[in-house]
Amino acid sequence: MSAAKQALVVFSPSGKRGRFAFGTPVLQAARELGVDIDSVCGGRARCGRCQVEAVAGSFAKEGIISSPRHLSDMGEDELVCLQGGRLKAGNRLSCQAKILGDVRIDVPASSQVHRQVVRKDFEAHPVKLDPVIHLYFTQLTEPGLQSPQDDLQRLMQALDRDWGLSGLDWDLSVLKPLRSAIRGSQWQVTVAVRDGTRIVAIWPGLRDHIYGAAVDVGSTTIAVHLCDLASGEVLASAGSMNPQIRFGEDLMSRVSYAMLNPEGAGQMTRLVRAAINELVLQVADQAGVEPGEVLEVTLVGNPVMHHLLLGLDPAPLGSAPFSLATDHAIELPATELGLRLAAGTRAYLLPCIAGHVGADTAAVMLAETPWESDRINLIIDVGTNAEIVLGNGARLLAASSPTGPAFEGAQISAGQRAAPGAIERVRIDPATLEPRFKVVGGSRWSDEPGFADELGKQGVTGICGSGIIEAIACMYLAGIIRPDGVIDGTLADSSPRIESSGRTFSYLLHQGGPGEGQPGIHIRQSDVRAIQLAKAALHAGTQLLMDRLGVDKVDRIRLAGAFGSHIDVKYAMVLGMLPDCDLAQVSSADNAAGTGARIALLNKASRREIEQRVRQVEKVETAVDKDFQRHFVAAMHIPHATHAYPVLSKVVRLPGAGAGAGAATENRHRRRRSRTKLQKG
Amino acid sequence: MSAAKQALVVFSPSGKRGRFAFGTPVLQAARELGVDIDSVCGGRARCGRCQVEAVAGSFAKEGIISSPRHLSDMGEDELVCLQGGRLKAGNRLSCQAKILGDVRIDVPASSQVHRQVVRKDFEAHPVKLDPVIHLYFTQLTEPGLQSPQDDLQRLMQALDRDWGLSGLDWDLSVLKPLRSAIRGSQWQVTVAVRDGTRIVAIWPGLRDHIYGAAVDVGSTTIAVHLCDLASGEVLASAGSMNPQIRFGEDLMSRVSYAMLNPEGAGQMTRLVRAAINELVLQVADQAGVEPGEVLEVTLVGNPVMHHLLLGLDPAPLGSAPFSLATDHAIELPATELGLRLAAGTRAYLLPCIAGHVGADTAAVMLAETPWESDRINLIIDVGTNAEIVLGNGARLLAASSPTGPAFEGAQISAGQRAAPGAIERVRIDPATLEPRFKVVGGSRWSDEPGFADELGKQGVTGICGSGIIEAIACMYLAGIIRPDGVIDGTLADSSPRIESSGRTFSYLLHQGGPGEGQPGIHIRQSDVRAIQLAKAALHAGTQLLMDRLGVDKVDRIRLAGAFGSHIDVKYAMVLGMLPDCDLAQVSSADNAAGTGARIALLNKASRREIEQRVRQVEKVETAVDKDFQRHFVAAMHIPHATHAYPVLSKVVRLPGAGAGAGAATENRHRRRRSRTKLQKG
Repeated sequence: MSAAKQALVVFSPSGKRGRFAFGTPVLQAARELGVDIDSVCGGRARCGRCQVEAVAGSFAKEGIISSPRHLSDMGEDELVCLQGGRLKAGNRLSCQAKILGDVRIDVPASSQVHRQVVRKDFEAHPVKLDPVIHLYFTQLTEPGLQSPQDDLQRLMQALDRDWGLSGLDWDLSVLKPLRSAIRGSQWQVTVAVRDGTRIVAIWPGLRDHIYGAAVDVGSTTIAVHLCDLASGEVLASAGSMNPQIRFGEDLMSRVSYAMLNPEGAGQMTRLVRAAINELVLQVADQAGVEPGEVLEVTLVGNPVMHHLLLGLDPAPLGSAPFSLATDHAIELPATELGLRLAAGTRAYLLPCIAGHVGADTAAVMLAETPWESDRINLIIDVGTNAEIVLGNGARLLAASSPTGPAFEGAQISAGQRAAPGAIERVRIDPATLEPRFKVVGGSRWSDEPGFADELGKQGVTGICGSGIIEAIACMYLAGIIRPDGVIDGTLADSSPRIESSGRTFSYLLHQGGPGEGQPGIHIRQSDVRAIQLAKAALHAGTQLLMDRLGVDKVDRIRLAGAFGSHIDVKYAMVLGMLPDCDLAQVSSADNAAGTGARIALLNKASRREIEQRVRQVEKVETAVDKDFQRHFVAAMHIPHATHAYPVLSKVVRLPGAGAGAGAATENRHRRRRSRTKLQKG
Repeated sequence: MSAAKQALVVFSPSGKRGRFAFGTPVLQAARELGVDIDSVCGGRARCGRCQVEAVAGSFAKEGIISSPRHLSDMGEDELVCLQGGRLKAGNRLSCQAKILGDVRIDVPASSQVHRQVVRKDFEAHPVKLDPVIHLYFTQLTEPGLQSPQDDLQRLMQALDRDWGLSGLDWDLSVLKPLRSAIRGSQWQVTVAVRDGTRIVAIWPGLRDHIYGAAVDVGSTTIAVHLCDLASGEVLASAGSMNPQIRFGEDLMSRVSYAMLNPEGAGQMTRLVRAAINELVLQVADQAGVEPGEVLEVTLVGNPVMHHLLLGLDPAPLGSAPFSLATDHAIELPATELGLRLAAGTRAYLLPCIAGHVGADTAAVMLAETPWESDRINLIIDVGTNAEIVLGNGARLLAASSPTGPAFEGAQISAGQRAAPGAIERVRIDPATLEPRFKVVGGSRWSDEPGFADELGKQGVTGICGSGIIEAIACMYLAGIIRPDGVIDGTLADSSPRIESSGRTFSYLLHQGGPGEGQPGIHIRQSDVRAIQLAKAALHAGTQLLMDRLGVDKVDRIRLAGAFGSHIDVKYAMVLGMLPDCDLAQVSSADNAAGTGARIALLNKASRREIEQRVRQVEKVETAVDKDFQRHFVAAMHIPHATHAYPVLSKVVRLPGAGAGAGAATENRHRRRRSRTKLQKG
C-alpha cells in the first residue's frame, strides 16, 4: 500500500496518532495504537459501546483538516443501532466506520474501558474503572455430527477466536445456563469473565451491563451501594440498622454474647447476612436490577463484624492477644456468605489489619491513600471504637483506641443517634449560661422564631454525638465545667439551669415539652465523665502513634465516618480530642469505608494495593501499652496541657461564642474559682 | 368392557404395564402383571404394606399423562391408615386405590416383598495408593502480644516448618474450626491438604484417618463404596435403585420426561442427590464413620446420569448431534451437588467421552487400561445401552450402541431384574424340548430334588437378562427358534410347551404355581424379537468400530457391569452378540465402572491419565451411521453369518447341552425344515 493511500488519524483525549491504509476501520486503528475503546460485541455493530465522534476542523498542530466525511457512510447495521438508541446522533461505531481521509477521532469517556469515575465526595481522587469482571460477546459455531465438540468447548473456541481469551476456567453455574443460552439465541452469548481467568456468568444474546455491590458492615449501621460495573456509577444506596444491635450496642457486648451463648455467634451471623440480603433487594429494586444480576460484592467491617459475617468465632478478639483468624483478604463464592445473588457471584472482603483494626480501616486507607503523600496524615474513624492511622509514604502505623460509643451518643443519659429530633449543635452564652441549639432535621436555632413549629409534634428527642461534644465544650468555655470535668455546683445560685442531683450537678440544656412526653434534656456529671474517658482514649491512641512515629504534630487530619461528617472540629479541639494541626487541614473524609469498598469493587488493582499496604502497616496494640495508659491519664482534663491554649485562641473567633470568648472564659474560670474559695471559706 | 373404558397402568421400577378396566384396584392390576407388591392384611387397608405412589407427569414413551388424580379418592379406611402414620403422605394403599385413568405407579422398595439384591459387588483391583488428600500433624506457636500473628499465619508457618508446605490456599470452612481446634488442643492440629495446595479440613490434635466415597450412578442402580484413604481399603458398600426410575426405565424416557415436564430435570436431580446422600449415610453407618469425615468423592455415570446429577439440561443428549455440556472432568465442592459431607469435601466427576459414552465408560477404561496392551481389546459395558471401547496402546475407539434394556430383562414379557426368584440359567433338551433352569438365590436346577423347597413361598417370579439370553440361545440350539427368529409353531404338535398365541407362538419355560399367585413364564415371539434387536445393535456397534480400526477379530473381550458378570459368554456367542474371539480370552470385568471410580479416588495421577486418554479416544457416532445400519440389518439372524459356525462348534461341548449338541442342533434344524415342508406340502 503506497503512502498516498494512507490517512493520518489522531485520537483524543489520548493524543495518539498514526497513519492507516484507506478502508481501515477506526476501531482497528485504535487497537493498533493502543487507544482505549470499549467493545462488548467484538465489532459486530451490536453493543454500541465503541462509539466515537469524528471532529470537524482544521488542526494546525497535527497538520490535518479533519471531517466526519473522511469516514465511510453509515451502513445498515449502524443505522439500526442509531434508530435503536444505542448510537448517539452524530457519533459513529468505530467498528463500522472506515477511514477514508485525515480525521480526528474523539473517544468519549463512556466509550473507554478504563475511564475515570469521579467520586462524589469532595477532595477525593477519581477511581480508575477496571473492575474484576468484564463482558464478552461471542458467536459459537453450531454443533453438528461432523463437529461433535461439546458446548463448553465451542464456547472456549469462540472466546479464543474473538477475544484471545484462552485457558479459561468456569463455574458449574455457567454450564447450566450455557446449554439453554446458546440454543435460545442463534448461538450468540455474552459471558462475564472474572479476573481474565474464569467465566462466572453467561446470557443469551448481547448484554452490556453488569452490577456489583459495595457493602459496609458497621456495628451500628449496614450500608449497601449498588454500582454499574460498566460505568462505575452508583445506581442506588440503602442502609439499615445492624440487627445484631439487639445483642449489644458495642462490639465487646456482642463478643461476650457469643461467648456466653453457644448459638450466639451463629445467630449474629445469620442476622447480618439476612440484613445484607434485604438491603441488596432494596437497592436492586430502586435501580430496576435483579439481585441475580449482581456479580461481584466487596465487603468491609471491623474485625468483629468481619468475623461474624464469615461465621468465624469472634471470641479470641475479645481478650489479649486479640488474634484474628486471618489478616488476609478473603475471596469466596457469595453463596458461602449466604448472599442470594447470581450463582457465580464472588465476594471480596478487604483484609483486616490487626485484632482491633479491621477491613473497614483498610477501606478507609484505600479511600484516603495516605501513602501517596510525604506529609504526616492522621486518619481517625470514630465509631464504637476509634481506629487511627498515622503516617505517610515512608511509614504507616495503625491502632485502635477503646473510646467506647460515647461519641455516638451512646452511654450518655439523654444520648441518641443522629436522627431527627436529636440536638446536634449547641451554643451557651457565657454571661447568662443560657443555651441555644439546633436539632437534626431542623434549620433554625432554638432561640429563633418558628423553631418549635418546624420541629412539629416530635419535638426535641435527645442529643447526638456532635451535640454532646459541642455541649460539653461550650459548658467548659462558659465556665460551667471545671478543667477537671466537674460541673461547678456553685453556679446553681446564679442560674436555674444548674441543678443538683445529690452529690453532683447537671446542666439543663432543654426544658422539655409541657405535660406528658418530652422530658427535659440534661447534661449530667456522668455524661461529662463518659466524654472525658472517650476523648482521653482517643487522644492517648493518637499520641502513642505519634510517639512511635517520632512526631509532635501532624500535617493533616481526616475524620472518617458519620461522626467525622457531623462534628464541628473546632469543638473537638476544645475538648482536646485531636492533636495540634492547622484547622484548615482538618476535614471530614465522609463515608471513607464505603468509598474504599466501592474502589475495591471498581478497580481490581486496588485490591492488590491495599493487601500489600496492610502488610506493611506497623500495628500498635494500645490495650496493654504502658505509654498508652500514661497518655490516657494525662488526657482526662479539659483541655489537657498539650492542646488547650493554641485551640482556645482559635475558638475566640467562633461565630457562636462571640469575639474574645476564649480569653473571657479563662477570666471567668479564674473568677469563679476565686469565688468558690470565698464562698467555701 | 370396551377399550375406551380401559386405562394404561405402568409400574416402576419393574416397567411392567398393562390395560385395565376403570375401577380395577391397583393391587389387583399389579398381581395380574406379576408386579411384586407386599401385603400382610390381604387387601383390608390395615397393614399399610402395599403402599405405592402415583407419579405425576407426562411420559412420551408410554404415551400417557399420569396423575395421582387418575386414582379414586381416599376412602375412610385409607384416611385412618394415613392418620395412624402407617401410610406415608402422598402415597396410596394399592389395595384401596382404584384406577380411573392412565397412571404410572411407583412401588417403593419398602413395599416390595423381594428387595432387590444390587449386584455391584466390589472387585479387588490393585491400585497404587496416592489419594488427592493427605494429612499433616503440626504444632503451632502460641499467640502472644509480642507475636501478634493471626491464627492462619501461625498455622501456615508451622506447616512450612514441619512439612515444607508453603503457599497453601484454604477454605473458609477451615478458618472456622481452626479457631477452636488450636485453642482446644495445646495448639496441636491435623490438617488435610488437597493436591498439595489447599487446606480443606482441620481437627484438634492427632488424626490419622480420612475417608472418601466412590459413587457409580447407574440408570438402574446407584452404588456407593466408602474407602479409607489412608489404607485404600473399602470399608463398606451399599446400593439402591436409582429413584429416577419412576420417570422411565431407560435413559431416553428420562430425557423425554425432562423435556415434557418443566420441573422434570430438577426433580430427577434432587432424587439422585438424595439417593446418594442416603447411601453415604448407610455406608458411613456400616463403617462407623461420620458422613462429615468423607473428604473426597468421585462420581461416574453415563452422560444423562452425569448431566442430571450436575443439574444440567439433558435434553440436547436426546437428539442429534447429542451435545454434551462438557467432556472435561469436573471438580467442584460437594455442596454444589447437594451432598452433605464435610464442608471442604470436593467432588470429582470423571470426564464424559461423547454424547452417548459417559464418565462410566471412562471409569471402565481406567479400570481396564486397554492402552497398556498391544493386543486388540474389546470392552463392552451392557446396561440400558451398550458402551463399546476397542483398541490398544496405539489407537482407541469408542461408541455407544442402542441395545435398549432387553439384556437387563426389561421389555421382556416375563422379564425382571436379577433378584431372588428370577430365572438366570436355562437348558433345553433338544430331543424332548423340556427345559431345566436355575433361579437367582437358589443352588439347584429345577429338575433336581429339593428345588421347590429351596425356593420357598416366593417361587419363580420371572426371568432376568442372563436367563433370557440362555433361554433364546437354547431354544435356537433345540430348533425351537429358526435362524430368522421365528418360533417354530409346527413343534406345537410334538411338545405341549409350544403354545399358540394368535398369529405367533410362545415357549412355556415354567408352568407356574398351583392356584393363585405364580403365573407361568413364557418366552414369547416378542421377547425373541426384542433380544434380536438388542443383539443386532450390539453386534453392529462392535463391527463398526472393528471396521474403523481395520481388524476382523479381537484378541480379548472384557464384559463390564452386572450383565457381564452374570452372563455365560458361550450363549452370548451363540446369539452372535460378540465378535470372533478365543473363548478363553472372554471374561467379566465385573463392576469396572465402580472400580474406575475407586481408582480415581485412591490415586490422583489416574485422574490426569484418564482425562488425557479420553481426549485421544476416537468417538464414533452410531446413531446416523450408514455402516451401522447395514451391520444392524445383517445381524438380525441367529446366529448371523459371521459368528454362527465357529461358536456352534464350541457349544458342542457345553455341559448342559450334551456332547455333540451343536452338530445335532444343525441336523435337527435341517430335519425340522424338511418336516415343515413335508407337512405343508
